[in-house]
Amino acid sequence: MDKFKVIETPNIEETTEILRNGLKNKAVLIITACCRVAYEGRAKSTLESGDRVIIIKPDGSFLVHKGEKRNPVNWQPPGCKVRFRTENELLVIKSLRSKPKEILEVEISKTHVIMYFILNDDNELNLTGSEVEMSNYIFYENPEIIEKGFQPIAQEKPISNGIIDILGEDKNGNLVVLELKRGRATLDAVSQLKRYTDNLSKENKELRGILVAPSITKSAFKLLESYGLEFREVHPPRKLKMDKIDDRNFSFN
Amino acid sequence: MDKFKVIETPNIEETTEILRNGLKNKAVLIITACCRVAYEGRAKSTLESGDRVIIIKPDGSFLVHKGEKRNPVNWQPPGCKVRFRTENELLVIKSLRSKPKEILEVEISKTHVIMYFILNDDNELNLTGSEVEMSNYIFYENPEIIEKGFQPIAQEKPISNGIIDILGEDKNGNLVVLELKRGRATLDAVSQLKRYTDNLSKENKELRGILVAPSITKSAFKLLESYGLEFREVHPPRKLKMDKIDDRNFSFN
Repeated sequence: MDKFKVIETPNIEETTEILRNGLKNKAVLIITACCRVAYEGRAKSTLESGDRVIIIKPDGSFLVHKGEKRNPVNWQPPGCKVRFRTENELLVIKSLRSKPKEILEVEISKTHVIMYFILNDDNELNLTGSEVEMSNYIFYENPEIIEKGFQPIAQEKPISNGIIDILGEDKNGNLVVLELKRGRATLDAVSQLKRYTDNLSKENKELRGILVAPSITKSAFKLLESYGLEFREVHPPRKLKMDKIDDRNFSFN
Repeated sequence: MDKFKVIETPNIEETTEILRNGLKNKAVLIITACCRVAYEGRAKSTLESGDRVIIIKPDGSFLVHKGEKRNPVNWQPPGCKVRFRTENELLVIKSLRSKPKEILEVEISKTHVIMYFILNDDNELNLTGSEVEMSNYIFYENPEIIEKGFQPIAQEKPISNGIIDILGEDKNGNLVVLELKRGRATLDAVSQLKRYTDNLSKENKELRGILVAPSITKSAFKLLESYGLEFREVHPPRKLKMDKIDDRNFSFN
């Protein structure tokens, strides 16, 4: 089995052979084709004929990309089953999800290029600046970034109406609920924090709620203040090394 | 200019020529290659060497896909600029976003296949079952699906702490706030509705809040009841025609 195989303007036999071999050998399939797409499941959609890029991964992920936008126009998650059949000169590929029941159907009238590609890839993404990292940083490394005397008690603490990011005590022994956001905090973050402090304040008279984020919207800050809650500006940690950002020496397309 | 061009195991001159032509002619570029990836912006990440699928769209969307999962491992949204340069035998492609400042850098050590593809696609997705559709259905077609005598007053009504999906009156003249969800309603949806009813109840003693969704989680329902708010089961409309779902006649790969 070759690492990859590409066929330009394949006939329908060549297309189905690549599909069959690609699926059997856990390859990624990439098809550029003129196709119609229909989806039925949690919603319904149709997409009439046009050129698209179709990607089928060995874990069952199925993507249909138009020529613009970041997100696929239609997709299925990992775990879906792929089926295909030919109907006259049409190739019909289906992706089936069982729970919830969802079907994506791609009807290809003209395949421009089809390829399979067996990936050799042992490396996973190494991410920093996430909410989990932010939480660990506050909890384990620098709780006083919140304020002097702050002492964390629990991380990821489940209560009846959600999960508290960090629960702690201030220097006066008051219970403090922290809600963390890695990006700009919005009205929803304020409501979330309010829900937790409301829940705990039944038992704890002296309770504070602090929204912890790199920034906050004006309307969110106003709502936060009206609830008697607080804001603390904390940026997610960034520790990875990367070459200095440098836009020079780049030829423009 | 051909509609597409594919080169297998291209040398670095062939690769940069396809890149240059593809970018110039508003084609989608697809590269299967062994590469390292680094990202810096709202967070930071690195991904060490491995085979991946890289897609660059003419609107500046930039995707790096591993061989599994639905989402790209790294990506940039539309509007980013693409730059590339060669460094010894390496090809370095960067995607630059200006606001917020984000840089995605892909360092390719081995290109397996590179292609450009000029898409001819005039059709947009025709979606039903969305929240907007659900709102329009309740507002214009069937307000009494909420309850007998319900009369909508405003749709997408901005207030100081958010946007109310539908504002209406019940048969007794009480103001009613509807918060719509197209999927299972969660704690966050309840908090959102509570935020809106709190806001309006200052001026309106007789105010009701109804969460409208196909279903609701147990904990969300408990919270909803504790707030004196209500739930109404409504499913998003589904009107598109599609071939009957049929798994027969599909050859399994």
